[in-house]
Amino acid sequence: MRELILDDDRIFPTEPAARAIARRIFTEIRDLPLISMHGHVEAAVLANDQPFTDPARLFVVPDHYVTRMLVSQGASLESLGVARRDGAPVETDPRAIWRMFCAGWRYFRGTPSRLWLTQQLYEIFGVTVEPSLETADQLYEQIDAKLHEPAFRPRALYQRFGLEILATTDSPLSDLAAHQVIADSEWDGLVVPTFRPDALVHINRAGWKDAVARLEAVSGVETGDYNGFLAALRQRRAFFIEHGARATDHGHATADTTPLEPADAERIYRSALNGSVSAVDAAAFAGNMLFEMAQMSADDGLVMQIHPGVVQGHDPQVAATFGPDVGFDIPLPVDFVRGLRPLLQAFGRDPHFRCVVFTIDETTYSRELAPLAGVYPAMRLGVPWWFLDAPQAMLRFREAVTETAGFYNTAGFVDDTRAFTSIPARHDVARRVDATYLAQQVAGGVLGLDEAIETAIDLTVTIPREAYPPLKG
Amino acid sequence: MRELILDDDRIFPTEPAARAIARRIFTEIRDLPLISMHGHVEAAVLANDQPFTDPARLFVVPDHYVTRMLVSQGASLESLGVARRDGAPVETDPRAIWRMFCAGWRYFRGTPSRLWLTQQLYEIFGVTVEPSLETADQLYEQIDAKLHEPAFRPRALYQRFGLEILATTDSPLSDLAAHQVIADSEWDGLVVPTFRPDALVHINRAGWKDAVARLEAVSGVETGDYNGFLAALRQRRAFFIEHGARATDHGHATADTTPLEPADAERIYRSALNGSVSAVDAAAFAGNMLFEMAQMSADDGLVMQIHPGVVQGHDPQVAATFGPDVGFDIPLPVDFVRGLRPLLQAFGRDPHFRCVVFTIDETTYSRELAPLAGVYPAMRLGVPWWFLDAPQAMLRFREAVTETAGFYNTAGFVDDTRAFTSIPARHDVARRVDATYLAQQVAGGVLGLDEAIETAIDLTVTIPREAYPPLKG
Amino acid sequence: MRELILDDDRIFPTEPAARAIARRIFTEIRDLPLISMHGHVEAAVLANDQPFTDPARLFVVPDHYVTRMLVSQGASLESLGVARRDGAPVETDPRAIWRMFCAGWRYFRGTPSRLWLTQQLYEIFGVTVEPSLETADQLYEQIDAKLHEPAFRPRALYQRFGLEILATTDSPLSDLAAHQVIADSEWDGLVVPTFRPDALVHINRAGWKDAVARLEAVSGVETGDYNGFLAALRQRRAFFIEHGARATDHGHATADTTPLEPADAERIYRSALNGSVSAVDAAAFAGNMLFEMAQMSADDGLVMQIHPGVVQGHDPQVAATFGPDVGFDIPLPVDFVRGLRPLLQAFGRDPHFRCVVFTIDETTYSRELAPLAGVYPAMRLGVPWWFLDAPQAMLRFREAVTETAGFYNTAGFVDDTRAFTSIPARHDVARRVDATYLAQQVAGGVLGLDEAIETAIDLTVTIPREAYPPLKG
Repeated sequence: MRELILDDDRIFPTEPAARAIARRIFTEIRDLPLISMHGHVEAAVLANDQPFTDPARLFVVPDHYVTRMLVSQGASLESLGVARRDGAPVETDPRAIWRMFCAGWRYFRGTPSRLWLTQQLYEIFGVTVEPSLETADQLYEQIDAKLHEPAFRPRALYQRFGLEILATTDSPLSDLAAHQVIADSEWDGLVVPTFRPDALVHINRAGWKDAVARLEAVSGVETGDYNGFLAALRQRRAFFIEHGARATDHGHATADTTPLEPADAERIYRSALNGSVSAVDAAAFAGNMLFEMAQMSADDGLVMQIHPGVVQGHDPQVAATFGPDVGFDIPLPVDFVRGLRPLLQAFGRDPHFRCVVFTIDETTYSRELAPLAGVYPAMRLGVPWWFLDAPQAMLRFREAVTETAGFYNTAGFVDDTRAFTSIPARHDVARRVDATYLAQQVAGGVLGLDEAIETAIDLTVTIPREAYPPLKG
Repeated sequence: MRELILDDDRIFPTEPAARAIARRIFTEIRDLPLISMHGHVEAAVLANDQPFTDPARLFVVPDHYVTRMLVSQGASLESLGVARRDGAPVETDPRAIWRMFCAGWRYFRGTPSRLWLTQQLYEIFGVTVEPSLETADQLYEQIDAKLHEPAFRPRALYQRFGLEILATTDSPLSDLAAHQVIADSEWDGLVVPTFRPDALVHINRAGWKDAVARLEAVSGVETGDYNGFLAALRQRRAFFIEHGARATDHGHATADTTPLEPADAERIYRSALNGSVSAVDAAAFAGNMLFEMAQMSADDGLVMQIHPGVVQGHDPQVAATFGPDVGFDIPLPVDFVRGLRPLLQAFGRDPHFRCVVFTIDETTYSRELAPLAGVYPAMRLGVPWWFLDAPQAMLRFREAVTETAGFYNTAGFVDDTRAFTSIPARHDVARRVDATYLAQQVAGGVLGLDEAIETAIDLTVTIPREAYPPLKG
Repeated sequence: MRELILDDDRIFPTEPAARAIARRIFTEIRDLPLISMHGHVEAAVLANDQPFTDPARLFVVPDHYVTRMLVSQGASLESLGVARRDGAPVETDPRAIWRMFCAGWRYFRGTPSRLWLTQQLYEIFGVTVEPSLETADQLYEQIDAKLHEPAFRPRALYQRFGLEILATTDSPLSDLAAHQVIADSEWDGLVVPTFRPDALVHINRAGWKDAVARLEAVSGVETGDYNGFLAALRQRRAFFIEHGARATDHGHATADTTPLEPADAERIYRSALNGSVSAVDAAAFAGNMLFEMAQMSADDGLVMQIHPGVVQGHDPQVAATFGPDVGFDIPLPVDFVRGLRPLLQAFGRDPHFRCVVFTIDETTYSRELAPLAGVYPAMRLGVPWWFLDAPQAMLRFREAVTETAGFYNTAGFVDDTRAFTSIPARHDVARRVDATYLAQQVAGGVLGLDEAIETAIDLTVTIPREAYPPLKG
């Protein structure tokens, strides 16, 4: 049995002088509130405040970072308890799933999952031995017992984690009932929705027509033509703002933001409603909708978050069997310079508009994103996301963008997680990386320590608070 | 008030042993002459030798690195004194502009501008407090007073900086009168022109026909057909060589160098003269002209500098209002492997030809540029340029290219600046980066210290002297 | 005369604590057997076991890493003894070639060739002074004398190097006679063939029709139609497996793996046999053949190695004069996400299939290759290859892929060399880089030392043994 170790100096530079500086900087930001402006925890988790079911369903089944690594080494998604769309049986014994995970612990060496999992196990659940086939059952019992204690319910953890705000990701069709429950409760946590219209703007995806019909129903605005569709979306944005929303979120295959002529938009929209739309038209419509959404953001103040460049369901058989978000989404190269040009020309210098742009194509950091964010006042760089949300990748981000865009054209850290208990660990890693990067600047004689501390605090709380301001009085 | 600090060990590695080696290497190159073979200082500055006007017009207004960062944080170009093409009023009070700059000092943290500005303020102007809203007026007075002293005139600074040669960038239409004034003077500084024919080879840009007409006038060669056009360019190259030119410079959207059939070149040239040319033909003509220029370089010995991969005026409204070079030019991906192939096939092994290739698409370093420069004898890699002219980016350059191309297939540092007083600081940063890279090789046990010192000296003076040899007897 | 130094801590981190850890890890793997599963040494070298001719023909003439660097600095391939296809005279005096190499020693500073050459000279041949024009003749004599000793014959060196297995690269047309000689001998070295069908699948290359005719002859299977062609390839694969082959190897311009409809494959195959095939059809056929080969691998168990993204003979005049592999092959960007999709959809989760994917386009590491290998169980990442087979590039590989794919989705180091005596030095460098990367993880507090040692051993021997299992009983 190996001891589970959580080094208090983890991620910091190894050179002692730089390490001491990093530790000094980190001390100033370690316990600042967590501002979680972009994530995938369901509001219902905090509305219902029910205990988490079991260790496997907390740590393994819903976390595609974890399942994809085990799949890459030969496990089937079924054996990891991931539900099939056809209802065919999958593993339901959480102990069996947990054992597979523990047996594969070594596959996570060198990955951020290992860091996040270790910190959760150690700090939240008091685990002090490494997961392995031998220790699996013991750890299962230890964690499972904790999960039944009141202190491990979601709302208690929210407070323990020091969350200042938690943004969820929500369909425009949502009635935001869970958010309302939280708002009506005596609990004082802040959980705000985020407007994510993907299912409505990608007009050749399965279910789009149904979604439009539901949009009409929930908005009370007729969606039979393109202008009605836009008006209905505006109604939902206003509804989201009433419920505390501060931002929208957009997942697209490309960064294209070219507006269509109104007649063309109308024509494509109607042909989609009639059930036939070409892939080219659908792509053009999606780009057009990013432009329309930017216009709406310039009007209503919702911050626009853009996440382009992903092949969803790279293996279509997996997608058909298990649906999305099971680890088979793969990045693509993105052309931000030409893609964002229409949006930035129209709104890039508009003081009422703000967009935060994310990428998992790190080749664009120094060539495209930093030069763009380093001049357009409306644009901020989203910090590393998804596959790049890891110590070395985050350091590469700072190294590649800071020299052109500085620190103040980036946005704060976003944890982007489905795993509620991983939120503190994810912010902890990001804060350590920023402390490390700043410490190297101090040790390298190009930044003063007081400036570095000020910058660290700005990156941790000032910038995210300013980047996502409240819109509701 | 914060003290302005210029750490004498800035940029060096933080590990003490490696730092000591870097310092040792740097000692050998720190005071070597500055060879500035590529920049945008006007020859008139040294021909007239007039004092610089004021701190704002020295440090802020003409420097798009500085203005773009302030714009990204909400300043308008007008408020920074950048002239509008329509003559509409912009800020003219240099104290007001200087105050905006000082108030935004923190935005430059982590950028090379911060390094260059700090070194200029500290070493040239004796400033010892950090710019801020509070210190702005005091610094303004201090610098402004210096600017009126004879020791701060351009020629005196040229000597103080230890410049060995300063290359300007000039239109083929120029009469090089300022260069002639310098040559005729008793002052012994060396200021040479560089042949930059962009306005003549991009045949669909505004003003091209006028430029061709002026080419005919200044060259005395009829430009009514393509061969005349080429002959006129050759005449101007000869004229530049007479005035000391050693190189040409070429800014293109792509790296294409495909030659046209003479009849096609003739046809496109004539249709451009007649005022109608397609974008495709114009692009083909531009690629063809790189090939033609390579042929001329193989004939007359001017070193060919190629800078591809930029969208000029990404925001066309800004370009229309303020013109080029105000911070809205953005890099693009470049295909050097296929783009340069015609040129390299024809001239890449020609001992009379030399090209230096630059990029701001760093993804091409290890994949394209180092493999090409590592085999074609005529090709040298230009060192990091523009957005990449910064400590971490320059270190990435050495790390990405050295293992394939070594040190001796790179060209010397080029400062590429419009800001005359920033020249020493820019070379200082580059020399520190090279010392750091070499020190890491020595500390890592893969290079001897004596070899490292020899290499550092070669990179600093030997290689640039050899790369840009004098052509005039 | 400079001393030739081989620092025992070379490549390790410079920070003392991290260096001590790296040294500790390296101690555990330094002397483990060499598993050389991908290279270009001819089996005949070990079948015949003749002495190497002379220093120039051992170190310079056949090594395109060496000749390309000397060419980039002005040497001609003729002067380096590289044979011309037209039989025109080239330098034949090995002393003259050796002198050119020694005189150019400084050009190799910072390159892996310098590391490999230094280690070979120092460890194998006992050289203690640096190559230079002054020392060239002395070194020539010293090495040449050794080459005549029995201990410097190939089989003796194989044993001295600690090789466990050496895979060669062979045409499907080969009778594998040299492998048979080795198998029949009393010598117990293990030399296995690798099936490389490039000449048969690129149907528009010169000599393809002849190759198909020879395929029919050696296989005894009629190749007049596409199915016969496939059957003949299957026959050769079986023959290779009988002779110990464990893998295939595929060099392609792109990563396309799209299968053709059988009728289309038939049509294109027949038109190629008739001597006319378009470039588009040839490319489609090549992609189709990768798919077919994957199918065959799923059937017979040969591990499929894919090396896409190279322009062969970037300078066609050099290619016409000297043939391939003389340093003028240049990388291209590769699209693995869309290219490999058909192959991965069909075989990526097939437990009987294994592919190892290599690249020299490092921009794909974090964006494409790590995400793909981090989920598809059949796919492993080939370690850095060719231009990227160097300390800093290998470190970038680990930094870019580990956080997404971990260590256990990579394959073991492959030396990929034509230079037999460089094999130990190449593995030594790779082991030092892995020790360094792991040491940084330990020093950075994110991995335990015992885990790091276990991982280092796995990367060195466990993973390559598992990645390329024996197929013959």
